[in-house]
Amino acid sequence: MPGTILLTDHPWPEVEIETAAFASAGFELVADSIETPEGKHVEFLVDRHDPVAIMTCWAQVSAAAIQRPTSLRIVARMGVGLDNIVVSAATRRGTWVTNVPDYCVEEVSDHAIAMLLSLWRGINAMDRSVKAGQWNPASARLERVSEKTIGIVGYGNIGRATARKMTRGFGCKVLVNSPSLLRQHVAGTQLADRSVVADLATIQQNADAIVFHAPLTPQTRHLANDVFFAGLARRPLLINVSRGGLVDNDSLIRALNTGKIAAAGLDVIEGEPAPPASVTARSDVIATPHVAFTSAASLLELRQRATQEVLRVLRGEAPRHPCNQPVTL
Amino acid sequence: MPGTILLTDHPWPEVEIETAAFASAGFELVADSIETPEGKHVEFLVDRHDPVAIMTCWAQVSAAAIQRPTSLRIVARMGVGLDNIVVSAATRRGTWVTNVPDYCVEEVSDHAIAMLLSLWRGINAMDRSVKAGQWNPASARLERVSEKTIGIVGYGNIGRATARKMTRGFGCKVLVNSPSLLRQHVAGTQLADRSVVADLATIQQNADAIVFHAPLTPQTRHLANDVFFAGLARRPLLINVSRGGLVDNDSLIRALNTGKIAAAGLDVIEGEPAPPASVTARSDVIATPHVAFTSAASLLELRQRATQEVLRVLRGEAPRHPCNQPVTL
Repeated sequence: MPGTILLTDHPWPEVEIETAAFASAGFELVADSIETPEGKHVEFLVDRHDPVAIMTCWAQVSAAAIQRPTSLRIVARMGVGLDNIVVSAATRRGTWVTNVPDYCVEEVSDHAIAMLLSLWRGINAMDRSVKAGQWNPASARLERVSEKTIGIVGYGNIGRATARKMTRGFGCKVLVNSPSLLRQHVAGTQLADRSVVADLATIQQNADAIVFHAPLTPQTRHLANDVFFAGLARRPLLINVSRGGLVDNDSLIRALNTGKIAAAGLDVIEGEPAPPASVTARSDVIATPHVAFTSAASLLELRQRATQEVLRVLRGEAPRHPCNQPVTL
Repeated sequence: MPGTILLTDHPWPEVEIETAAFASAGFELVADSIETPEGKHVEFLVDRHDPVAIMTCWAQVSAAAIQRPTSLRIVARMGVGLDNIVVSAATRRGTWVTNVPDYCVEEVSDHAIAMLLSLWRGINAMDRSVKAGQWNPASARLERVSEKTIGIVGYGNIGRATARKMTRGFGCKVLVNSPSLLRQHVAGTQLADRSVVADLATIQQNADAIVFHAPLTPQTRHLANDVFFAGLARRPLLINVSRGGLVDNDSLIRALNTGKIAAAGLDVIEGEPAPPASVTARSDVIATPHVAFTSAASLLELRQRATQEVLRVLRGEAPRHPCNQPVTL
């Protein structure tokens, strides 16, 4: 059963790992550019190559892209979130949707903490100042991390890693929040990693920093809007390393301008890959280009695990990380 | 026994805390500018005010400055290191030298880790790139912190705090080194915080980052010289948050140019407050202006503890943190 596998986009420079693994099983990989294509272009690629599998990093995989191939067995997300795949369309036509849920836990958590510490210790702003020839220690307004309360919204693998590092490593108080946590525990429950289950209002009242580790869903879209920012009591930092859509950019700018938050660290920004300079150019914002998931180790794991998942399904086996239950197989 | 207390320099904008505490005990505080004066100017101030106590932050307190006052009871360092005080001159004339050894442990350790994480997660470089209008995730060369080995040179309160955070928080392997550690333990001994005692050669061979938490002494001056850099095997990061004099700037530049180290994070630089731009302007160096010790909490503790130590000695009591044993009292 040879066939073509379409890789819509890949934010790494070459695809030798994927090409070699598929070739040895008799499949041909077609890889589009490292730029993320529009959803319409993905549909064009699907029409052209009639793939048995679609692998996507950031590109939108529409219902049409899923419906049109002759025999599409799997749509594999090379990453964790599923917000760029119309999962229901795959389920309806009997196609597996998979992700790689466990590959970049350390990286995203490290990245969130790097942003937290950079802001509290003034690293970016003071480095800019020293590079401009100034040496002005009296201007420092820095913070002691151990005295801080961190609110973590989203308590999957990544949220748990950040909670553990901030409690055990830095001695911070950590408040954690997710819908499933609040179904399993009463607010106020202390967990094994010493973090405490909290509702969102408690985090808004008590946190000196709020870290978003939640998926983008209709419920979380623009979670950080004017109402959310208005409820913040302690002028916290805001760190977003999950999806840009969790934060309303205009509300964020207003919150910075009015001092509802002290600063923001953003690895993801609505509008990326061309986010508004009104967000990124500010001195109270540090931004990185959606790279929190990357390291040499994590990219290798991501590429190998996603490739093996696709091969598993193409051999007729069940996927290891199914994200749907296709209606017909 | 009223008299004058000379505060040579203070990298905070006002001296209300110190002035009020001394006034209530009948002493007058004379505070020089927030700029650090030359040693000669300190001698001039001593001649002018004939102090019973000298408090110094960064200013050099020479043998002459210590010998000339009519009745000098204490030279109080507002900080930890003693490299700017001629301690032997104080000891000879029966004057206490004190420091505040325990006030900024969390801050300096947090700052070192902030620099480590900023470099490994590309925060500064990528923020610059995003602020310049680029969005280039494929250029990221980031690291997974948990897989790293950290060498810590200096294992006082601050070195221990960094070791604990990196082992318990991030799961790193930590190698620790100091003369007293190697007198007490065989190299290879695992300590309670899971760090492992190591000689310097073992750190040079195995570390992915080397953090300097050691005092500046004749033995540690230019510890990081050409010979030291030549012995590094794994292209580590170098973090210096103790004293600029530990690192030879010219050797550092050569080590960066030849790839013996990957990058450097420097809160202290030889030549400060006007360190060479050949060090600070590099994109593979992040620099902050000797502020690792600061936070609102730590500055308050420093100022209160140093002031109380001076008052203790002026009341005729023994200091809590003596750094010498004066020959006559």
